[in-house]
Amino acid sequence: MRTDSFQQVLEDLNGASADVEASALISNDGLIIASALPTNVDEDRVGAMSAALLSLGDRAGRELARGDIDRIMIQGERGYVIMTSAGEEAVLTIMAKPNAKLGLIFLDIKRAAEALAKLL
Amino acid sequence: MRTDSFQQVLEDLNGASADVEASALISNDGLIIASALPTNVDEDRVGAMSAALLSLGDRAGRELARGDIDRIMIQGERGYVIMTSAGEEAVLTIMAKPNAKLGLIFLDIKRAAEALAKLL
Repeated sequence: MRTDSFQQVLEDLNGASADVEASALISNDGLIIASALPTNVDEDRVGAMSAALLSLGDRAGRELARGDIDRIMIQGERGYVIMTSAGEEAVLTIMAKPNAKLGLIFLDIKRAAEALAKLL
Repeated sequence: MRTDSFQQVLEDLNGASADVEASALISNDGLIIASALPTNVDEDRVGAMSAALLSLGDRAGRELARGDIDRIMIQGERGYVIMTSAGEEAVLTIMAKPNAKLGLIFLDIKRAAEALAKLL
């Protein structure tokens, strides 16, 4: 099943680095397609925040002449939220630890996003 | 004058790397404190987008347990918007070219944000 394939890519992503805490594939309107989230992370909340950030990111991209948005990153004291386009219709949202190595995580996310885009 | 000092830090930041296109120091409610923007970038638009992103970033930080927000980055096909806290009450927003070297830019921004925070 296709859902299993999505799930596998997300679990591989979480497993690739101890720094990735959670990942989810979300449609552009904020609905969860697949997710690999720890039990303390609410799926609907991740979907809603992803949709709101995508929408504002798109607007900022237009208003500030940045073009179509490839990635949105929020860095807080207790960790990262990173959203990356996975094809035209979905976004891969991950949460990572505060001391995560960004270069490595960006690489893992990019590969996962490409794999997910092929499955969509 | 203090405004001149802010301006100087922003111009030094723009001058430090050819990848930085524009920079502005903005209060948490979106008002411009100082800016070094090219003539084709509208100051009010940068302020408004910064305030909207800060507000949503803060909310995402709370909802997704990321803590207080240190940095927000939007990467588009035509370049970056990067916002970094400068003290408790302001944010440094910069715009950079699409092929900018992120490690170098993050370092330059961090130094400028620290210098601005001291002046505030």
